[in-house]
Amino acid sequence: MGKVEDFRAYRERMNARIHAEGTLLTKRFFNLDTNCYESGALDTKTKEMLGLVASLVLRCDDCVSYHVVRCVEEGIQRTEIMEVFDVGLVVGGSIVIPHLRRAHELLDELLPAADR
Amino acid sequence: MGKVEDFRAYRERMNARIHAEGTLLTKRFFNLDTNCYESGALDTKTKEMLGLVASLVLRCDDCVSYHVVRCVEEGIQRTEIMEVFDVGLVVGGSIVIPHLRRAHELLDELLPAADR
Amino acid sequence: MGKVEDFRAYRERMNARIHAEGTLLTKRFFNLDTNCYESGALDTKTKEMLGLVASLVLRCDDCVSYHVVRCVEEGIQRTEIMEVFDVGLVVGGSIVIPHLRRAHELLDELLPAADR
Amino acid sequence: MGKVEDFRAYRERMNARIHAEGTLLTKRFFNLDTNCYESGALDTKTKEMLGLVASLVLRCDDCVSYHVVRCVEEGIQRTEIMEVFDVGLVVGGSIVIPHLRRAHELLDELLPAADR
Amino acid sequence: MGKVEDFRAYRERMNARIHAEGTLLTKRFFNLDTNCYESGALDTKTKEMLGLVASLVLRCDDCVSYHVVRCVEEGIQRTEIMEVFDVGLVVGGSIVIPHLRRAHELLDELLPAADR
Amino acid sequence: MGKVEDFRAYRERMNARIHAEGTLLTKRFFNLDTNCYESGALDTKTKEMLGLVASLVLRCDDCVSYHVVRCVEEGIQRTEIMEVFDVGLVVGGSIVIPHLRRAHELLDELLPAADR
Repeated sequence: MGKVEDFRAYRERMNARIHAEGTLLTKRFFNLDTNCYESGALDTKTKEMLGLVASLVLRCDDCVSYHVVRCVEEGIQRTEIMEVFDVGLVVGGSIVIPHLRRAHELLDELLPAADR
Repeated sequence: MGKVEDFRAYRERMNARIHAEGTLLTKRFFNLDTNCYESGALDTKTKEMLGLVASLVLRCDDCVSYHVVRCVEEGIQRTEIMEVFDVGLVVGGSIVIPHLRRAHELLDELLPAADR
Repeated sequence: MGKVEDFRAYRERMNARIHAEGTLLTKRFFNLDTNCYESGALDTKTKEMLGLVASLVLRCDDCVSYHVVRCVEEGIQRTEIMEVFDVGLVVGGSIVIPHLRRAHELLDELLPAADR
Repeated sequence: MGKVEDFRAYRERMNARIHAEGTLLTKRFFNLDTNCYESGALDTKTKEMLGLVASLVLRCDDCVSYHVVRCVEEGIQRTEIMEVFDVGLVVGGSIVIPHLRRAHELLDELLPAADR
Repeated sequence: MGKVEDFRAYRERMNARIHAEGTLLTKRFFNLDTNCYESGALDTKTKEMLGLVASLVLRCDDCVSYHVVRCVEEGIQRTEIMEVFDVGLVVGGSIVIPHLRRAHELLDELLPAADR
Repeated sequence: MGKVEDFRAYRERMNARIHAEGTLLTKRFFNLDTNCYESGALDTKTKEMLGLVASLVLRCDDCVSYHVVRCVEEGIQRTEIMEVFDVGLVVGGSIVIPHLRRAHELLDELLPAADR
């Protein structure tokens, strides 16, 4: 299908390669990265929004894509995502805009017609 | 008093100077920066945590201090702040640790004895 | 046509989507971003060079492309752009070089044969 | 005297140590760094403003201080410096603000009373 | 052939353009960049690993690719490269992971079957 | 005593606070960070130099200080450290220079008179 599926497939294939070739420390880091977004004192929704804004201000398209997908899966509304984007834009500046363009393109693929 | 008051006083004094000398655009940016954390589709609590994690991964001590103070003012619990720190640490890496040290020091000034 | 046109079309299409879905704050940020390069105490030429060097050291290809196009539109000479690139290279280091390659490629599309 | 003199003295003392202990490559890099702001296709004024905005968006206080001092030495007006700050603020985002505070403080030391 | 060859060809073509159009300072910077990895107090192997980890934490794919190729040319083993990656991952955080995916993909092209 | 001891004391005190207040994930990240520099396919010397150059290009003074101290403890020579600095300087650009000044100051405290 679209970009979302391509990204997911590449991500899974290469993560498998990293697990196969990486060290024990590599694997432990990947575990931490997964655990980090699990519900605790903060729920997963909030943590995914934290992951999204962090990815935006650090300007990493793949990380932004990953967390946009996860936010949508967690049922976070488009209006809420727009305000996460705003925090990222104000904190990170206009240099964030190209990443917002690609994030909006992805969001249009994930939340088509009816939702708009 | 402590570091919190020094930081607040310096911040207010220099923000006044920026408003006095800056352009109209400078002032408009500062307004945007204030508006950005006001309650909307997301509440101020969530937005302050977004501001905190963004500041952490960008490794700006003053911004981290500002948002730690704001998070405590908004009644966000220490256990919740710890999980915001964790997202910042995992996303941003060990380079974030020196900023976490200073953020913990500030938190100990803001939430003393009884709270621990 | 070439990369310049593709980039411009994508940029305009997605900016329209951002304006359609974004908040009032999003729109106000975009206005600030436009106003920022208008002639004031400094002329637009100087401001576009400032935008270019900032984009280079922050290593954002889309932002570099945008400001290279704008610099050429403002009549800034290739020899002048080369010196903006030099400041970006010295301040930002060898990590800037891949972005310089793509900026030169774009410049060759914008200022072909006769100009060289 | 003030912060400007402290900064200048420390800078000169440690640059001398770097020249004494560094390699030939270190010395050559420092030469490049000096040459970079010399008048060429662009004049030194413009290049110092480029150095200033690059330092701002990369959020390096010492580099910002150095270029603010140099801009003032080159006769660049406060109103012009304000617009360099604006480009840095819009491109780099609110994370730049703490550095703007310190830059304004320095500017008040360099351009006192009469000038305001 | 594969991505490695495409990258090398583009890199050489555009470096030639940069040398043709750039200033004397540009050329001198490129010379420094080359000299920097030559054997001295540290051998080239160590320096290439330093270049690789610096590129990883600064999250520059082209620079990572360049140094991965160079590390393999210098006979650095996959298990050693894995540990350079680990330092980059721990220091730079999960934001480095997308770059690790592409670095592993490149490594699989450079060190196929037999080596695994 | 000097800056090294102050830094070490603060670091240990606040790391203890982080361990006391942080989550299980926080503690596991700190363990990873320690394990990362242990001898494996690469020896600790090489890994400490990797940590140093990564800290330099990310421009974190505390991290640079930590790894400079560790490099000296591991018996890495001043001439070798100078070349790690050079890679950091060329990759990261002149924005790294203020951090080099402070790193040299620390090195002068760690390796006094006789060694020079």
